[in-house]
Amino acid sequence: MPHIAIDNGLPGISGLLTLRPDTAAPLGMLADALLRAPAPMSRGERELVAAYVSHLNGTRFCEGAHSAFAAAQLEGGEDLVKAALTDLSSAPLPERMRALLRIAAQVQAQAAPVSPEAVAAARAAGAGDTEIHDTVLIAAAFCMYNRYVDCLATDLPADPGYYAEGAKRIVDSGYSHGN
Amino acid sequence: MPHIAIDNGLPGISGLLTLRPDTAAPLGMLADALLRAPAPMSRGERELVAAYVSHLNGTRFCEGAHSAFAAAQLEGGEDLVKAALTDLSSAPLPERMRALLRIAAQVQAQAAPVSPEAVAAARAAGAGDTEIHDTVLIAAAFCMYNRYVDCLATDLPADPGYYAEGAKRIVDSGYSHGN
Repeated sequence: MPHIAIDNGLPGISGLLTLRPDTAAPLGMLADALLRAPAPMSRGERELVAAYVSHLNGTRFCEGAHSAFAAAQLEGGEDLVKAALTDLSSAPLPERMRALLRIAAQVQAQAAPVSPEAVAAARAAGAGDTEIHDTVLIAAAFCMYNRYVDCLATDLPADPGYYAEGAKRIVDSGYSHGN
Repeated sequence: MPHIAIDNGLPGISGLLTLRPDTAAPLGMLADALLRAPAPMSRGERELVAAYVSHLNGTRFCEGAHSAFAAAQLEGGEDLVKAALTDLSSAPLPERMRALLRIAAQVQAQAAPVSPEAVAAARAAGAGDTEIHDTVLIAAAFCMYNRYVDCLATDLPADPGYYAEGAKRIVDSGYSHGN
């Protein structure tokens, strides 16, 4: 049961965003800026960073949601997302993406400089400053979203189709039109 | 040296916000919504949550900045902020604030439900749903801001007066007008 009264019956972050439109507005704008705005990483790649960090944090709602959003926007679909979350080193990902996910894992672990080796590996695989910046900020942002959802003990969706349904809406309209 | 090129010479998050106005806009709006908008917790109390979480994360830039912003807006000033960050149990804080900072510490530690005991202690000391929500989201947000600043290995300010100077600007104008 959530730690605070959420009277709209919505699970995960959806209930919190509906409860508090004042904080939902900048949180939605931030998600759009990080995951949807034009950038060298594709929308699917950025959603994969979000799903991976949510997985590492053990936040099932965000892992389910962003895995669905990544699968809907990556050529490898659900299988690729599952492979990446299960075993990064063997997943059939481009080296650039594997190296960026390794940076994301360091960001998830603690607020401390990413290792120079991890940054060098991403650069060697073709990532530039923008990809490194965006990966770090997406990973950092999901350390926020995950805590928001988990620390307040929000509910999981009763319907297992909830995330796929959400994926249609997010892929079409983005985060600022409700989540 | 930062992991990416920051050509504006500004330290900490200031350099990143100037480098990337696209993500700076929602990050500034979020800080204003969390730390400045009307709420049952005063601006000084909310800045103290930000300073405390930054201290626990070891992010010196954010700890210095938000300690200065808290001191400028709390009756107990710098001494109270230092006492809270040094030893929460003995600091001369109202019990409600001490209990909320204990919730913030749990949020800083991991993405997992805050203990029912910590929530009950905050309620017993007079905190309601809004204070509990706001404390959790501020603490979660600083797990993001702290990682953004530290994981990219940004510089500390050369001038020790940097934070006090910033406090004047933040107290007067808020976060969306540059940081």
